[in-house]
Amino acid sequence: MKSRQVLLVARPVGAPKPSNFNLVDVDVRDPGPGEILVRNIYMSVDPYMRGRMNEKQTYAQAWQVGQPADGRAVGEVMTSHHPSFPVGALVVSNLGWREHFVSNGEGLMAIDRALASPSAFLGVLGVPGFTGWYGLKEIGKPKAGETLVVSGAAGATGSIVVQIGKILGLRVVGTAGTDDKCAWLTKDLGADAAINYRHGDLEEQLRAACPKGVDVYFENVGGAILDAVLGLVNPFARIALCGMISQYNLEAPAPGPRNLRNMVGNRVLMQGFIISDHMKRYPEFLHEVGGWLKTGRIRYEETVVEGIDRAVTAFLGLFSGDNTGKMVVRLGLEPARSGSR
Amino acid sequence: MKSRQVLLVARPVGAPKPSNFNLVDVDVRDPGPGEILVRNIYMSVDPYMRGRMNEKQTYAQAWQVGQPADGRAVGEVMTSHHPSFPVGALVVSNLGWREHFVSNGEGLMAIDRALASPSAFLGVLGVPGFTGWYGLKEIGKPKAGETLVVSGAAGATGSIVVQIGKILGLRVVGTAGTDDKCAWLTKDLGADAAINYRHGDLEEQLRAACPKGVDVYFENVGGAILDAVLGLVNPFARIALCGMISQYNLEAPAPGPRNLRNMVGNRVLMQGFIISDHMKRYPEFLHEVGGWLKTGRIRYEETVVEGIDRAVTAFLGLFSGDNTGKMVVRLGLEPARSGSR
Repeated sequence: MKSRQVLLVARPVGAPKPSNFNLVDVDVRDPGPGEILVRNIYMSVDPYMRGRMNEKQTYAQAWQVGQPADGRAVGEVMTSHHPSFPVGALVVSNLGWREHFVSNGEGLMAIDRALASPSAFLGVLGVPGFTGWYGLKEIGKPKAGETLVVSGAAGATGSIVVQIGKILGLRVVGTAGTDDKCAWLTKDLGADAAINYRHGDLEEQLRAACPKGVDVYFENVGGAILDAVLGLVNPFARIALCGMISQYNLEAPAPGPRNLRNMVGNRVLMQGFIISDHMKRYPEFLHEVGGWLKTGRIRYEETVVEGIDRAVTAFLGLFSGDNTGKMVVRLGLEPARSGSR
Repeated sequence: MKSRQVLLVARPVGAPKPSNFNLVDVDVRDPGPGEILVRNIYMSVDPYMRGRMNEKQTYAQAWQVGQPADGRAVGEVMTSHHPSFPVGALVVSNLGWREHFVSNGEGLMAIDRALASPSAFLGVLGVPGFTGWYGLKEIGKPKAGETLVVSGAAGATGSIVVQIGKILGLRVVGTAGTDDKCAWLTKDLGADAAINYRHGDLEEQLRAACPKGVDVYFENVGGAILDAVLGLVNPFARIALCGMISQYNLEAPAPGPRNLRNMVGNRVLMQGFIISDHMKRYPEFLHEVGGWLKTGRIRYEETVVEGIDRAVTAFLGLFSGDNTGKMVVRLGLEPARSGSR
């Protein structure tokens, strides 16, 4: 059968351009013994993919020029010769930017549609949510009453961190790039304050929002926000470095935070982390955050872009802040929910 | 009796100047019941004191304008009405820049002259050595075969870190500001390589000296060296932030490291620490490093400046790298070693 997939055809220098990618038609073979054919329904675009477009390998394997981009997707099993993945099952894969694929099941995870809608397994119940949960709890080590700042707070990970922060009894301050996102953070997600980093003096706004200083910082952005937070850190503050989206498209690294020396006197801990090191905690996360989702203590938003031909647009939109919550690309229709559940 | 002490008379802006201080004559009263009179023999000048000259309190209490500077000193008990501190005992105090003082014994620590010379309790067996030992072991968590970089490696703390690093089986690379210091690091202290940060391309030199990247960084300096190290960090590297002497005299903070984003992908831990939080570990340190000192596995150097009238000169010399090893000011003669020990 015919299917489409996105290739990386040239490594971007600075900000990626549509010409770095190509959408091609491919033949998908029939699944053999022990294999399944999957039709992807949603695929994920995430900021970390920018690093994979570079030649130099970071923690995730670099994409190869001329080869398909990959990443998380959720799809439906269409043909099955594998007992663990029957026809109709929904599976999360890590093969990304393609409409169909054949697999022997390795690396696939069946998901429970009763817990949440399929796309949620790319966001709130997937890697972004897991990342936020782990980083806040294990690196941030928050205590009720402390002040938590979250940058990129309206993003897939940030929006979960904000809500877990509130559940844990923290004062939560989020930063985002539009007034609408800020309103969503305070009105819908319960943040105590939200700062539009595009307006006014960031340090001044942050100081006003954090009258008792900053105890925990969850970092998704880097640059000026990190610097401003370092100017306000309390003794024994913890900084979870999840990402630095402001830096990924720079051709040459920008100068870093001026206030780094505050880390000495205030005994600040800063820890970079990558969630793939901690996958054994995923069931615990799924249990806790899945529970909060069911009882309505955690909510989530998605920005859905339609069609694999717009996958690159969706990816590039991450860097201009086009998304509120998780950015996903819809590749096909969700199957009807069957039966009596 | 008459004695002399150094007052802070104006808060420095940027680099301190001699005019920020004044040496004054004071009357020292006779010790009352339960009190002792101490004659200081050596006083310590340390980079962290620069922070205490600012109005804003950091972790250590700000010095008050018009009041005596303080800090560690080692002295001899001259008159005693206190059973724990007999005449002739040597004591470490934290009252610093003065020739004599009267005390009820609070905060004083008697030292064992059999272990090392009195001035060593301000350096290798004092706060600087303790700081290096704790930061390397507890934050650096070094494993044999790893690469350790130490900035300010020829200083009081750095030179101990270098040697403990070798004892623990690491490849050790130190940075210092003169060729003589570099030669001392490699020839006398056993460092595998030493880099004069004033010569040539720092990043290139560091890359050449660390062919397997950097696993542990002990930071005394900040600025360009931190940036260069962040360009070479290995996955799961640990950075102990002990101090940033390059930053203390800046009137406005300088831009920070460009390579900070490497902390995410490489899951780097950076931890500021202040040794006064960990004083309960001092006996353990004294046992271990004291033992290494006795067996000759650790050696130390001192730069001795004579006379309290040159204390300010000695302090300012820390920022121009005048010291190799610990900078101390000798205020008086050591007592003769008595008897049959």
